[in-house]
Amino acid sequence: MLTARAYSAPSATEPLVPSTIERRDVGAHDVLIEIKFAGICHSDIHTVRGDWGTVPYPLTVGHEIAGIVTEVGPDVSRYAVGDRVGVGCMVNSCRECDNCRAGQEQYCLNGNTGTYASRDLDGTVTQGGYSSHIVVNEDFVLRIPGSIDFAASAPLLCAGITTYSPLRHWNAGPGKKVAIVGMGGLGHMAVKFAHAMGAHVTVLSQTLSKEEDGKRLGADEYFATSDPDTFKQLQNRFDLIVNTVSAVIDINAYLKLLALDGTLVSVGAPGEPLPVAVFSLFGNRRSFAGSGIGSIGETQEMLDYCAEQGIACDIELIGADYINQAWERVLASDVRYRFVIDTATLPAV
Amino acid sequence: MLTARAYSAPSATEPLVPSTIERRDVGAHDVLIEIKFAGICHSDIHTVRGDWGTVPYPLTVGHEIAGIVTEVGPDVSRYAVGDRVGVGCMVNSCRECDNCRAGQEQYCLNGNTGTYASRDLDGTVTQGGYSSHIVVNEDFVLRIPGSIDFAASAPLLCAGITTYSPLRHWNAGPGKKVAIVGMGGLGHMAVKFAHAMGAHVTVLSQTLSKEEDGKRLGADEYFATSDPDTFKQLQNRFDLIVNTVSAVIDINAYLKLLALDGTLVSVGAPGEPLPVAVFSLFGNRRSFAGSGIGSIGETQEMLDYCAEQGIACDIELIGADYINQAWERVLASDVRYRFVIDTATLPAV
Repeated sequence: MLTARAYSAPSATEPLVPSTIERRDVGAHDVLIEIKFAGICHSDIHTVRGDWGTVPYPLTVGHEIAGIVTEVGPDVSRYAVGDRVGVGCMVNSCRECDNCRAGQEQYCLNGNTGTYASRDLDGTVTQGGYSSHIVVNEDFVLRIPGSIDFAASAPLLCAGITTYSPLRHWNAGPGKKVAIVGMGGLGHMAVKFAHAMGAHVTVLSQTLSKEEDGKRLGADEYFATSDPDTFKQLQNRFDLIVNTVSAVIDINAYLKLLALDGTLVSVGAPGEPLPVAVFSLFGNRRSFAGSGIGSIGETQEMLDYCAEQGIACDIELIGADYINQAWERVLASDVRYRFVIDTATLPAV
Repeated sequence: MLTARAYSAPSATEPLVPSTIERRDVGAHDVLIEIKFAGICHSDIHTVRGDWGTVPYPLTVGHEIAGIVTEVGPDVSRYAVGDRVGVGCMVNSCRECDNCRAGQEQYCLNGNTGTYASRDLDGTVTQGGYSSHIVVNEDFVLRIPGSIDFAASAPLLCAGITTYSPLRHWNAGPGKKVAIVGMGGLGHMAVKFAHAMGAHVTVLSQTLSKEEDGKRLGADEYFATSDPDTFKQLQNRFDLIVNTVSAVIDINAYLKLLALDGTLVSVGAPGEPLPVAVFSLFGNRRSFAGSGIGSIGETQEMLDYCAEQGIACDIELIGADYINQAWERVLASDVRYRFVIDTATLPAV
């Protein structure tokens, strides 16, 4: 066993504190990763605060992990010491259900093993990326191309794949009108990807405060959802709307912005149900869909695409002692556009 | 002008009564149809009773029309006197919007002209099929193949196309598991079509009272939704669920029955919104969609398919003096599976 430095939540309500966690011995198919950078995702906060159910404490979160391989198990074939690698939201799955066999382990019917707060094969609770090291089965490790800025690559493992996957699945590309709802960590990546894929990109944000950024990242148009005229002007307009906002929205107003056979796909989820008027779906044969991260195969595809297109996240690099403040700023939507922890700053306890 | 016999609603609350209505002169592109049969659709009742908004009275409803051409305008090219024809839910559209130009006039962005209770080009209110004659622009007239029983063909114009279109659009066919929710006028047609298309068909009905019929019509399996075990047993099962029920259902319980990339499409709409938990959509990347009737082109395709496959509706043929009782029985779900009015029984007033 290896003792890793970490920053952990003692409970749902207390600030995170420096701590240590135990990592399992490196198994035959495992990779030991020295974590260099860990992104801060809104999900980390939801999970720790119990918004999505009870979790065990103390808990170390973080599922946007970039690091260097420092040891490999005897049967590891794809990675070697020194490789730049990443770990995202899952570290295993059942590998036997229809979805796993179809290469869509993010939808594992038996529930995949989350990178944190999940029950691992050995019965322990998984602990995430706000730490110095992690041991992961090689099948759930991604290769991070050398041309991507290493710190800015970490959030690709969640914010990146979560937006890339639905854009690919619903065929964002030339001739398609795509709207991105929200200009946060996920939204700013969705704008970059949709633009790179060749779609006409419109941002729908609460205000115009980030319009300049949005257009710099690739948006063709930018509208404030606080202005009711936006919803009149854009009716029947979009082939695809990617909703990155996890707050409750007026879902029927957004559905009416979809053109014939358009889809609104949510990648953010509010805790309470959204009241869908079925008549909003009848017009234009509209669809309301959900999408969760992406498969391991697609995550690798996304990373390679980022290298090819010169895409990474816009980040604010922070030290470990800033994590609690960073969380408050995430809750206030005050970050452009993702906090990334430099794990070299994790203190010895 | 031609005076037609009809059965009309004097108000939202009174029984229908014998009446006469005026039909416009046959224009250059118009077809005069002597109506032989008119189906009774639940929408007729919703419309008259004001469930979907206020409507003008007196009103003649009916949008499942089968009849014989008795006169054609000078510029009519596709129909001749004596032809067996049908008219469905719309009698015109703007012909200029993106959707009309795409041949999807059922989704006309300017609102197509409904067969009844709609504003016609000349400013009059359209009147529907519970009548002896109707005048319709030939572009919105369908050809009913001679091999289909004429009375049983009438409901194809709404119940038929409304279920055929989403089954085709979402690729019901061999290897696909399709569930049909509800075994009423629409549901029984959906079972026939899905079976003919080669899908594995499951009926989800409140009780097992119609199981024998369902299996005779082509269902492979039949489950009662009043049994909570149904929702446990069938989780992650279906590629497509067609919901024909317009009552409020527990939408999240049904969404969870969808397999990877499955779609639940509603063709029936309750008056109130359905509370969708977005987490129900995340799993399996599910979609919740709506579909309204079908295009004129697809309606003709459906009629030709019915002729080829030997498909028509299961009907109960009634005289005009039974219409009010039939409406009560439709509201009580007491019909197997569609009432059709023999319009020869419409009294002279």
